[in-house]
Amino acid sequence: MVGGVSVRDNMTERQKAKGKRQKAGARAAVRSSLNYQPSALNYYLGLDLGGTSVKAVAVTKTGEKLRQRSVPFVDRDMEWAKKIRTLVKAWQRELGEPAGIGLSAPGLAAKDARSIAVMPGRLLGLERLDWTDYLGITQAIPVLNDAHAALLGEVWRGVARSRRNVMLFTLGTGVGGAAMVDGHLLRGAIGRAGHLGHVTVDWNGPRDDFNTPGSLEHFMGNKYIRERTHGRFPTTHDLVAAAVKGDAEAKEVWDRSVRALGCSIGSLINVLDSDAVIIGGGIARAGEALFVPLERYIRHYEWQAGGQQAQLLRAELGDYAGAYGSAANALGFNPALKG
Amino acid sequence: MVGGVSVRDNMTERQKAKGKRQKAGARAAVRSSLNYQPSALNYYLGLDLGGTSVKAVAVTKTGEKLRQRSVPFVDRDMEWAKKIRTLVKAWQRELGEPAGIGLSAPGLAAKDARSIAVMPGRLLGLERLDWTDYLGITQAIPVLNDAHAALLGEVWRGVARSRRNVMLFTLGTGVGGAAMVDGHLLRGAIGRAGHLGHVTVDWNGPRDDFNTPGSLEHFMGNKYIRERTHGRFPTTHDLVAAAVKGDAEAKEVWDRSVRALGCSIGSLINVLDSDAVIIGGGIARAGEALFVPLERYIRHYEWQAGGQQAQLLRAELGDYAGAYGSAANALGFNPALKG
Repeated sequence: MVGGVSVRDNMTERQKAKGKRQKAGARAAVRSSLNYQPSALNYYLGLDLGGTSVKAVAVTKTGEKLRQRSVPFVDRDMEWAKKIRTLVKAWQRELGEPAGIGLSAPGLAAKDARSIAVMPGRLLGLERLDWTDYLGITQAIPVLNDAHAALLGEVWRGVARSRRNVMLFTLGTGVGGAAMVDGHLLRGAIGRAGHLGHVTVDWNGPRDDFNTPGSLEHFMGNKYIRERTHGRFPTTHDLVAAAVKGDAEAKEVWDRSVRALGCSIGSLINVLDSDAVIIGGGIARAGEALFVPLERYIRHYEWQAGGQQAQLLRAELGDYAGAYGSAANALGFNPALKG
Repeated sequence: MVGGVSVRDNMTERQKAKGKRQKAGARAAVRSSLNYQPSALNYYLGLDLGGTSVKAVAVTKTGEKLRQRSVPFVDRDMEWAKKIRTLVKAWQRELGEPAGIGLSAPGLAAKDARSIAVMPGRLLGLERLDWTDYLGITQAIPVLNDAHAALLGEVWRGVARSRRNVMLFTLGTGVGGAAMVDGHLLRGAIGRAGHLGHVTVDWNGPRDDFNTPGSLEHFMGNKYIRERTHGRFPTTHDLVAAAVKGDAEAKEVWDRSVRALGCSIGSLINVLDSDAVIIGGGIARAGEALFVPLERYIRHYEWQAGGQQAQLLRAELGDYAGAYGSAANALGFNPALKG
């Protein structure tokens, strides 16, 4: 059995994988029904697979936190998958069987929400891995894109509670995002809705990885920081620190970054009609150096129909937003159903 | 009674209007219940209030057309409202009582969908006019923004049947639009979602009416044609005709317009993840001179994750898209409920 599992962990060919998953699923169902122990806690387990660690929370239906854990991994031989399984088993033993498990990860979630369908380049083995089968759970584990999950988490238990029209930007290596309109988390035709970093700010700029010319990510993503500063600053953190100290060049470059974000938010308010904009990710730690000028640019660029102004919010759940969102997804949280 | 109705038609002060509408609503309910004649046809009535005419359709539940009419009006003393009432009464007499009535108009629809909440500048009297009361109908008349209705119409009975992830651009004096994601027609916090003409293409360009710098509307809207062509062309139609004949300057300006649209579509695919893009409005009559280069630019700028390409479609229902959409809205058409 251990050998079997190890073969499944390392497989890459889809057809072989499918057959094995089916058998594994059947074995898992038996195992699961034998071990099933309804938990007195009636808790939900939210898992968020990141680039270097897995974040997990065990929460009640109302979002009360029972457990929280971060498990680091090295991205080889699907170590992340094994660590997730170990963690789930441990909590099953300690807390009893969860009422539901949800999972999020980078990439585009499959239509049936049982796996991540597209995630090229890293986390080899993640594409098409059926988590319900893999973890041997009878109840389906809904899978979400990580940014989608982070937004759902912030709406459920974070800074955007009870909101229905919100966009989220995560400012880091790249610029990620997600959007909710009328309470619906936007997924789209192939699950890529909400890639808010890939909107044009300057159409004469170079095309980014997604073919978007002069994109927001190009102006704000940490991956382009050397290019933007002619090699002077290795990270956005250094750039902002220099700008705060009064360095003229740093101030100018940072101002352009913030203006690009404000301008994109202005455009996207016209498309999504959000009444709140959440900013998260590592660059959000710049604090006032980001939020004060950003608010000014948003006021400058937004439509303000009938005096309407979007609220600028700072993400509250930090690295655990995705885990909370995954739990929310497992328990069927859906703000569209409220009025 | 006739005198009372005429006073209601001409009123402009809100409070006076509200009291009178309530009384009128009560009178109307009585009138309606007395006259109620269930129609053997079981039809739905879709009304679309435009800038110079009202378009109306009477359709069956499956979209089969029973009647279609365009009623021109002059925008003064709420002539449009009176003409709509006359038309509704006439069809009630001829076809019997409709199973439902829907209406669309320019401006932002109110949260309760009983009126247009915001429409400054023209159609004086439209803001906050409660159509259910005004037309004396017992069953609530749902009110939609006109572009939202046009998209719903195209998805119900037009070129985008059975699609769930679509955006619509209407290219005319300005550039309007609407978006549907996962089958949900996006409305947003104050009903302004889908203003796709107001996204930035060139952030160094001038800000448009909605504070958006270098917007798509600025590059494509007919209202800016003189500015774009240094006064040489009075309409986009003239510009395209000259471009087709080989005029070098016209070709360059038109190419910039089409490229701006293609670039915006590329950005918005990343945000909304549409698998189809519908182009309508007067400028869409340019035909191949628009669609051939536009398709090329879309391919250049879109992400194409996993080989995905958005389909470029030409609006099919023309001036009646909004009327069809209003009927669809009245009968509760909702693509989000299918799978």
